[in-house]
Amino acid sequence: MSKTIEKSVTLASNSVSTDSRRGFLKGMFMSVAAAGVVAPVALKADDAAITEEAEWGVKLGFPVDKYGYGQRSPYEHNVVRRVTDLLSSGDMYASVAMCPIHELEGGIITPNGLFFNRSHGGTAIIDPNKYRLMIHGLIEKPIVLTLAQLKRYPSESRIHFIECPANGSAEWRGPQFNSIQFTKGMMSSAEWTGVKLSVLLEDLGVKPEAKWVLAEGSDNSEMGRTIPIEKIMDDAMLVWGQNGEALRPDQGYPVRLLVPGWEGNLNVKWLKRLEFGDKPWHAKEETSKYTMLQPSGKAIRFFWPMEVNSIITSPCPEKPWTDLKKGDVVEIEGLAWSGQGTIQHVDVSLDGGDNWTEASLKGLVLPKSWTRFSMIIKWDGKPLVLQSRATDDTGNTQPTINQEIAAVGVESVYHRNAICSWEVKANGEVNNVHVRG
Amino acid sequence: MSKTIEKSVTLASNSVSTDSRRGFLKGMFMSVAAAGVVAPVALKADDAAITEEAEWGVKLGFPVDKYGYGQRSPYEHNVVRRVTDLLSSGDMYASVAMCPIHELEGGIITPNGLFFNRSHGGTAIIDPNKYRLMIHGLIEKPIVLTLAQLKRYPSESRIHFIECPANGSAEWRGPQFNSIQFTKGMMSSAEWTGVKLSVLLEDLGVKPEAKWVLAEGSDNSEMGRTIPIEKIMDDAMLVWGQNGEALRPDQGYPVRLLVPGWEGNLNVKWLKRLEFGDKPWHAKEETSKYTMLQPSGKAIRFFWPMEVNSIITSPCPEKPWTDLKKGDVVEIEGLAWSGQGTIQHVDVSLDGGDNWTEASLKGLVLPKSWTRFSMIIKWDGKPLVLQSRATDDTGNTQPTINQEIAAVGVESVYHRNAICSWEVKANGEVNNVHVRG
Repeated sequence: MSKTIEKSVTLASNSVSTDSRRGFLKGMFMSVAAAGVVAPVALKADDAAITEEAEWGVKLGFPVDKYGYGQRSPYEHNVVRRVTDLLSSGDMYASVAMCPIHELEGGIITPNGLFFNRSHGGTAIIDPNKYRLMIHGLIEKPIVLTLAQLKRYPSESRIHFIECPANGSAEWRGPQFNSIQFTKGMMSSAEWTGVKLSVLLEDLGVKPEAKWVLAEGSDNSEMGRTIPIEKIMDDAMLVWGQNGEALRPDQGYPVRLLVPGWEGNLNVKWLKRLEFGDKPWHAKEETSKYTMLQPSGKAIRFFWPMEVNSIITSPCPEKPWTDLKKGDVVEIEGLAWSGQGTIQHVDVSLDGGDNWTEASLKGLVLPKSWTRFSMIIKWDGKPLVLQSRATDDTGNTQPTINQEIAAVGVESVYHRNAICSWEVKANGEVNNVHVRG
Repeated sequence: MSKTIEKSVTLASNSVSTDSRRGFLKGMFMSVAAAGVVAPVALKADDAAITEEAEWGVKLGFPVDKYGYGQRSPYEHNVVRRVTDLLSSGDMYASVAMCPIHELEGGIITPNGLFFNRSHGGTAIIDPNKYRLMIHGLIEKPIVLTLAQLKRYPSESRIHFIECPANGSAEWRGPQFNSIQFTKGMMSSAEWTGVKLSVLLEDLGVKPEAKWVLAEGSDNSEMGRTIPIEKIMDDAMLVWGQNGEALRPDQGYPVRLLVPGWEGNLNVKWLKRLEFGDKPWHAKEETSKYTMLQPSGKAIRFFWPMEVNSIITSPCPEKPWTDLKKGDVVEIEGLAWSGQGTIQHVDVSLDGGDNWTEASLKGLVLPKSWTRFSMIIKWDGKPLVLQSRATDDTGNTQPTINQEIAAVGVESVYHRNAICSWEVKANGEVNNVHVRG
């Protein structure tokens, strides 16, 4: 396969000649059970952190509940969502705050304070006592509900990711950000609690001619999106809880729509009304944005699910291997997800896609949810080009960049799920590069 | 069965004559699929919250990332951990902050800000760069690790509850707090990330004569606890991540021991060292506290796992049914958990234990983890005495109060897992009562 590698930031020539390296991986893969998984560095005996009593060992700490609502360690102040003028209007009202997915400490829960945030008119702060939800149109018993009334319905909790369809949007024409946070941080995952719409609608009655639902937010942007009735009745929910507490304002407090696995902005925040109709609405946000342009210039009319995808989170540009020595054993870890089903397997390549080895999935493997994958290798200190390629239980696999471009061109900013590549240099630095495949 | 009902707070006579009520439950149970699950109240047409444009619909909200680390809604300020002088030394350094388990919005994740907190010398704030972990004693390669070295080991993530063995301690001699937060709030649940000790010890080598492990904290209380090697090698972990971010200082930042399902204080925070030996230590905290007194005055020598347990979280004293009308359909919901296995089923009684009906388990059902149960009923507006009774996959079931007292007396403050009762009055008020059974 003829491939080119495009780099972000630097324009160094491609030093990776993949063809000559076939077979060089032999002996690199390790099982967790292998002895000497990590060879800890011996510390100096005169390490003051060992020989001297720490301040916190001799003094009382903070009172047990100085904070009724707990705080992070001051040493974690650098783990934050990040914004960039390049992806916003500059005033940061209608913009996006990126999740530090590489700094999440494992698992499939994003703490609410780090959940990515996108809004079209800033974050609305809603008084829950004045919150009303209207459900109307082709409904037998149209109604306006208070929050307390809505929460009377039997609840369910499910773990799902939400991903903005523009995640990775900067990458269509070549590598841009040498950063995982800015290339893949428009997504996060949480345990959501609310009522399934199918349960609520059994109560209110949907007229047989209802085929489409308009979901509209109550914030000043009046975000409106249209959803087919089949998805509404399948697994959509009205959610008020996120990771065990009320939604944060930036996630739509007090109520948002959850459309598991589909485009992030279908999960309308600060939800004001659901209208049931017999035709799609083609709302402002569906025509001015969130359409998938083809090479012909025509848009694909409906394109909702976030397709199978993956990214290696460790190492990555912000989390390099510069502290590793030749021969060190190290864990390659990443996230895989699919809005169409459950992750079936993830393959990892160390040589830019010539050779693939199946990674381990670890922890919970749930539908329309982040899934962690892992591979332990003994790094020989030579340059690598790391890739991950996920496959879901619908049989879909991530395309190469060339395959994706052949299918949809490069005009779109949405739904990018081509295989990503991290170049690992001999000094452990990691760069975002494009291997077209 | 002859039963008495003891009340907390008020001393009203027992108005519940259970024998005469057998069979009164007929027709009360509803499936979620039943039409008219909730009959929403019609709102007045002149409701200003419907007819007038809300402020947040016409004004820009907050910039998309005013907070690099997101904040809760100001309207949720009352959802907090709570302390009481009755359960502390008054200075609140060595004390406990109770989790509002009734205000968690479903699911099995407690947000880190609300995770219960118990400490014996206040919350230590540790500089992660000065953190050292010593692993020594009967170990082939004794070592001192930095945090970065520890985090090089392959990680795992698991959802587990942690419960202080003193949870419910005030209840042994009769109902005391008319509150779920103060009777059952010494527990929370999270997704933990770290390395399994079995993986790390494969690297370091455990000498065959090692049978016991001392875990010691680095805070000023020098919390020390002894754990048998079998548990250490089975599922114990060194954890640094909680719900996707670094442990909070009040949960042991940067590293705590996780001993899934066992007494909360075995999960030593601010972990300083693990020493491997051939005999148990009988550390200060194991003799002065955390022993299980029997009626004879003798202590049970080792008693680690938190046994099968459950509590109805809705309704409860802080979350009554005072807004419900006769004939309303309502969800009874609660938490079940076992430190010895997986919840198999939960039965709910509406009449103080005379009749039992199996509840639905909802969401994830995982070992040594909180499990949500649910039952939908149509409330006829008559008084009820609600109970839940969980059974785990070891076959263990919660005892009645009399059964538990017969086994261990009332001298202990630990390991209470007797069936709890909430009295629901005709006006919807809910009280903590004891039905001895």
